[in-house]
Amino acid sequence: MPNYLKIEPLTKAAFEPFGDLIEMDFAKSYLINEGTTRRYHHLSEPDVGEEGGRPIISIFEATRRGLPIEIKMMEKHPLGTQAFLPASNDYWLVVVSEAETPTAETLRCFLVKGNQGVQYGKHVWHHPVLCIQPKQNFWIFDREGDGNNLVEHYFDNGNAYINIDHLT
Amino acid sequence: MPNYLKIEPLTKAAFEPFGDLIEMDFAKSYLINEGTTRRYHHLSEPDVGEEGGRPIISIFEATRRGLPIEIKMMEKHPLGTQAFLPASNDYWLVVVSEAETPTAETLRCFLVKGNQGVQYGKHVWHHPVLCIQPKQNFWIFDREGDGNNLVEHYFDNGNAYINIDHLT
Repeated sequence: MPNYLKIEPLTKAAFEPFGDLIEMDFAKSYLINEGTTRRYHHLSEPDVGEEGGRPIISIFEATRRGLPIEIKMMEKHPLGTQAFLPASNDYWLVVVSEAETPTAETLRCFLVKGNQGVQYGKHVWHHPVLCIQPKQNFWIFDREGDGNNLVEHYFDNGNAYINIDHLT
Repeated sequence: MPNYLKIEPLTKAAFEPFGDLIEMDFAKSYLINEGTTRRYHHLSEPDVGEEGGRPIISIFEATRRGLPIEIKMMEKHPLGTQAFLPASNDYWLVVVSEAETPTAETLRCFLVKGNQGVQYGKHVWHHPVLCIQPKQNFWIFDREGDGNNLVEHYFDNGNAYINIDHLT
């Protein structure tokens, strides 16, 4: 039987072990610009300075993978946080794991709204970006610099799958 | 006669004195994630470290101003860059000035596409965020820290206006 992941709603509490959920939290907001703009302030703080790292802004143009989506590996960035912020108001998915060495059985899959971003903490196992529409763009805030900031781990004992037929 | 600003298309060359235009530049791109994602890499580099500053991510929920839009002041951030990245694919406007002390006559107004962001350089005079739809959200990368990072200047000699009737 293929291991189909349960798709959970994303909440601040659920995402806490993995980093920051970046969303419009009214309690952190105040009005600026003569009352015309509400600033939701300091929702996440990038941490990319290790080993002389510098913050950079990039764009990821993601293409939907074949269905059902097969999850056969995870990655992590030991030297810097990585934030994904949707450029269009479309749902997307994150897959993360709290295990020291992830297996298909340790994965958690969250449905993320199009007005929510996430910042993965350093050392947090996550899957590369997963979109639901055929193409979706994301603004990326991560690290430029020396050192090895990418660790990948492919599963030995079977992969996981995500059925998104009801979401497309 | 009111001073109506000409709305110019935004190009990399035109924006160079003011900071970075952040857009999908194919020449800076490469494929990642087994070919499913194109990374447009290092499109801008935030510079927020002065006087102990740290990078933060916030959200601006902008409301359209009364029409025609009246431009009566400009602001600048001496201690850090500030990036605006649209959260929805809607056109928006930036108003900037190269003058040492801006007046209405020195302003330039650019129409920005919904898939383009900008990062204002330190000390660059710009107007607070201007949206065209009734509400538009932006992901913001700027600076948290001590020191005075906001300078505002109100015009003495008359304001400028922007007619966006043809854009709404």
